[in-house]
Amino acid sequence: MADRSPLAPERFPDLPPIVGVRLASTACGIRYKERRDLMVALLDPGTAIAGVFTKSKTRGAPVDWCRNALKRGKVRAIVVNSGNSNTFTGRAGAQVVERTVAKMAALLKCEKRDIYISSTGVIGEPPAAEKIVGALPAVVRAATADASAWRAAAEAILTTDTFAKGATRTASIDGVRVTINGFCKGSGMIAPDMATMLAYLFTDAALPAALLQELLTAANERSFNSITVDGDTSTSDTVLFCATGHARHKRVTSARDPRLKAFRRALDALMIDLAQQIVRDGEGAQKFVTIRVARAASAKAARAVGLAIGNSPLVKTALAAGDANWGRIVMAVGKAGEKADRDKLAIRIGGTLIAEKGGPVPGYDEAPVAEHMKGGEIEIEVDLGIGRGAATVWSCDLTHGYIDINGGYRS
Amino acid sequence: MADRSPLAPERFPDLPPIVGVRLASTACGIRYKERRDLMVALLDPGTAIAGVFTKSKTRGAPVDWCRNALKRGKVRAIVVNSGNSNTFTGRAGAQVVERTVAKMAALLKCEKRDIYISSTGVIGEPPAAEKIVGALPAVVRAATADASAWRAAAEAILTTDTFAKGATRTASIDGVRVTINGFCKGSGMIAPDMATMLAYLFTDAALPAALLQELLTAANERSFNSITVDGDTSTSDTVLFCATGHARHKRVTSARDPRLKAFRRALDALMIDLAQQIVRDGEGAQKFVTIRVARAASAKAARAVGLAIGNSPLVKTALAAGDANWGRIVMAVGKAGEKADRDKLAIRIGGTLIAEKGGPVPGYDEAPVAEHMKGGEIEIEVDLGIGRGAATVWSCDLTHGYIDINGGYRS
Repeated sequence: MADRSPLAPERFPDLPPIVGVRLASTACGIRYKERRDLMVALLDPGTAIAGVFTKSKTRGAPVDWCRNALKRGKVRAIVVNSGNSNTFTGRAGAQVVERTVAKMAALLKCEKRDIYISSTGVIGEPPAAEKIVGALPAVVRAATADASAWRAAAEAILTTDTFAKGATRTASIDGVRVTINGFCKGSGMIAPDMATMLAYLFTDAALPAALLQELLTAANERSFNSITVDGDTSTSDTVLFCATGHARHKRVTSARDPRLKAFRRALDALMIDLAQQIVRDGEGAQKFVTIRVARAASAKAARAVGLAIGNSPLVKTALAAGDANWGRIVMAVGKAGEKADRDKLAIRIGGTLIAEKGGPVPGYDEAPVAEHMKGGEIEIEVDLGIGRGAATVWSCDLTHGYIDINGGYRS
Repeated sequence: MADRSPLAPERFPDLPPIVGVRLASTACGIRYKERRDLMVALLDPGTAIAGVFTKSKTRGAPVDWCRNALKRGKVRAIVVNSGNSNTFTGRAGAQVVERTVAKMAALLKCEKRDIYISSTGVIGEPPAAEKIVGALPAVVRAATADASAWRAAAEAILTTDTFAKGATRTASIDGVRVTINGFCKGSGMIAPDMATMLAYLFTDAALPAALLQELLTAANERSFNSITVDGDTSTSDTVLFCATGHARHKRVTSARDPRLKAFRRALDALMIDLAQQIVRDGEGAQKFVTIRVARAASAKAARAVGLAIGNSPLVKTALAAGDANWGRIVMAVGKAGEKADRDKLAIRIGGTLIAEKGGPVPGYDEAPVAEHMKGGEIEIEVDLGIGRGAATVWSCDLTHGYIDINGGYRS
């Protein structure tokens, strides 16, 4: 594994057990040597599941499987391998999925469509099904609810990430305390080959699949869909959210139920925490950038403008150099394709107002902005001045490290 | 000026005179020292003009002026300064445009809206109008139809380009020979600050403004709108096309007139030649990439897929490394947002079929592809297998040079 990102959090958080969730991981030798590359999460019968997936038209075989299985909304196991994405692998790739799922269903004596699968790593080479299938019986036997299993699971799904990413939150539903744990991987598209953003969330709350899906989709927009490292979209992006239902709160059937307010807030916070960790492990990233867009035509427009800034190679290279080049932010706003008015736009960096009303502010002093740009945490604020939509987007700088990582040969 | 791009053509072509076009350039000290930074093209009375401009919502004051002037469709002069883009300069910037245009109109005794203006360079600082205005009388006096003036004009509009870009073609309209000359600048967004793609085209053909606009808009899609260096869109992009009407061919009023076939073809070829020169001067570019997309749902969809490939940082870093990483091309096709079917997609690099029917071809031998990737001219072919739309897009690789150029401070 490469050097830990300079933007990484100090340590992996302590994730408490969640009743109904057991985890295990092992090294089955798909691609990496002496490194865990297979993770299994086992869920008690009755666990509901929701998911969101890549919008790519060239998505991998595991994504096809999950999208189809999700119609049922039940889950007994999630199987994730790293090192091979099983994408663009044709019929052979679909067979790997089928064999894995069949084996797991046989071990758990459940339906095949209660098994979910994700793969991340090299593209275009079908993974060796026998390595995955062969490892499953021992992994299932080893599955545990111990707290230590979370970190091991988070490590087993990594590819070229430089640190394991986890988060936990609690909330109360109608007076009953519930927990949400999550872990994820991804640092843009990861060298030495295209990789992926994967995230797995678990709660003991008792929420039906349709409601879970509604909560996940909404929170996903404000978290994983609001980050960017390089603007490239993986063929395998997957977020799964499992609710075991062991918490004994009263039945809730609507996502808008006020009793879910704290849960929604905790889910948002957890997913934003995980999403930010992905940016903090962005390939070659040296600076973590928060882009707040206010007074856009809509929240969607605000996010599009934020992503245009966060994805712009010119903005990202200026950030890398610590250059307060706000003209490039103006450019990125202009190219976003959303409603904007040059003469109503205001731009702040590190809290300092730089430009408004179509030009730089009189007597603009670059010194405090230049000082802010030297740090590892950059704040950009853009006020479009035309509506009520707001969004926050997180990104990182574009450095020589990105090119070194992604320009390397695959083997 | 930086070292000449390794992808540059051997020399600037010989551009013949065009009756009714006179050119001059000078160094007026806007930003650069001892370097021509002001270009003027003078056109005979009766010259028609067409134009296409950046779609940016934060476009510069000169673009606002040109878009408005274009309603009249007549031109007597084009004034271009390099070193300052006069963008996001508020009221002061608009005044610079007004003063320049008023001075030029007084010198030529014409209407102000017959004067066109472009600016390229630093953003957010109004240029010194007196330097531009003060230089105009002498420049107008010096204007000449000599062949040597073309190269000098092409040099005067450069910012951090590493070579001057020009092209010429001839065609026959109804048996009468006409000439088209053009020159342009731009290498993506150019350091040390955001810059611009500018192009100026001139012909002695006698074509009304509306027809000229139709021809320009169509050819622009297949040329300047089919190239990418970094996917960032300038606030100042401008292409102007002037027709002096001195050629004595019969009147043509429809762009679809078969007598215009050769002219359309020559215009296409000239604009593609110029557009390719811009890519060949892409910031840090070491490889010139041609991306041919076939059998897409439409020509527009094909171009969008081609641009998704050409803009992908992962594809571009793989190209820089000479890595035949075709999985990243699959990824870029998938994220383009256009209709695509993983299992109908075929990918070739340097003519070698790599993948089709959802997976790599049996016995795929990477050796010839790896050999092709070592060269400076890369060919990527993508067959979507779903429709009849085709497009060709030109791009370049993403190298450490790009980051060095764009990560540098502005001063």
